[in-house]
Amino acid sequence: MKAHTEYLRFHTRKRRDYVHITPQVQEVVARSGIKEGMALVSAMHITAGVYVNDHESGLIQDIDAWLEKLAPARPDYQHHQTGEDNGDAHLKALLINHEVIVPITAGKLDFGTWQRIFYAEFDGQRDKRVIVKVMGI
Amino acid sequence: MKAHTEYLRFHTRKRRDYVHITPQVQEVVARSGIKEGMALVSAMHITAGVYVNDHESGLIQDIDAWLEKLAPARPDYQHHQTGEDNGDAHLKALLINHEVIVPITAGKLDFGTWQRIFYAEFDGQRDKRVIVKVMGI
Amino acid sequence: MKAHTEYLRFHTRKRRDYVHITPQVQEVVARSGIKEGMALVSAMHITAGVYVNDHESGLIQDIDAWLEKLAPARPDYQHHQTGEDNGDAHLKALLINHEVIVPITAGKLDFGTWQRIFYAEFDGQRDKRVIVKVMGI
Repeated sequence: MKAHTEYLRFHTRKRRDYVHITPQVQEVVARSGIKEGMALVSAMHITAGVYVNDHESGLIQDIDAWLEKLAPARPDYQHHQTGEDNGDAHLKALLINHEVIVPITAGKLDFGTWQRIFYAEFDGQRDKRVIVKVMGI
Repeated sequence: MKAHTEYLRFHTRKRRDYVHITPQVQEVVARSGIKEGMALVSAMHITAGVYVNDHESGLIQDIDAWLEKLAPARPDYQHHQTGEDNGDAHLKALLINHEVIVPITAGKLDFGTWQRIFYAEFDGQRDKRVIVKVMGI
Repeated sequence: MKAHTEYLRFHTRKRRDYVHITPQVQEVVARSGIKEGMALVSAMHITAGVYVNDHESGLIQDIDAWLEKLAPARPDYQHHQTGEDNGDAHLKALLINHEVIVPITAGKLDFGTWQRIFYAEFDGQRDKRVIVKVMGI
């Protein structure tokens, strides 16, 4: 068994943003030399997520509006008594999830036609990281 | 380390459906010969999910009603400007999640008493697939 | 490849509770002797979850209120026709998710500064378990 780890770095210009990262993850898998296994793609923050869905700009707008509806920015979160103002970003990250595991077969992401990996930023404009850890043979 | 991969196939009669797949996943694990490890069970589509919960018909109705309440079918998703009409199916899949990782101990799914794996279809009546990738020793 | 499995046990005094388990998971990883790999941390119940987020009491109150808003306790779930009264606990568990996979690098959880693992109990006051399965080299 081999393990290979790299870190992707982000610094979005917007507070909320959705960054397509399938090519970067595929490159990490290629560099790992692993042909059969899994890649963990996991945000290293509590106000960001990673998800798999369609690379379509209308849908990304829908996802953003839906997250804001179900986990709205509001002044009155208890968390804000610490001086933070990003309570909604924590809840959005919990809703979308902070990680995915993607299957690797024959050295490639074993995805369906439309599956793509996204980094979802909910409290950006600062340095953030995603770990990509590949395990397999 | 060994890796073993199979694909489950679905073509539901209803647009939304919940299919119990624990026996099929256990059979894949048995065929893998793997005694200690993990199985990734992951929908290969962006309008379907995989989850673990109770195999109880009333609860499945509750889950369906709950997903429809939180991610309702609506005409006005931005995604529909592409000609699609399944914006809600994408959001439901994000809410329920498209994959689970299940532990394998002594050659079996190491589950609690009531845990069962379900395929959740949100845009069915067409061919769909789930990858089951088992890794371990 | 090595695999190492332990079970954490819970019996919360409250029906809903959020228990910080990062130290216990780190101890399991240390006992496994695994330096590079992943740990699956997964509730063995259908009314409990595991998530990664901030260890901050105000935020935990926000998370609890948010889960109750999106998946409220109500008398009229179909599931209650079985005699159960915990329909909301199933939905809360689906929302927060029942498992996480955490990366292990150099023998430690490869986490960002604020990432912590929590056991989320939604139908407590009884014995419950979480499996921690570590795989790697």
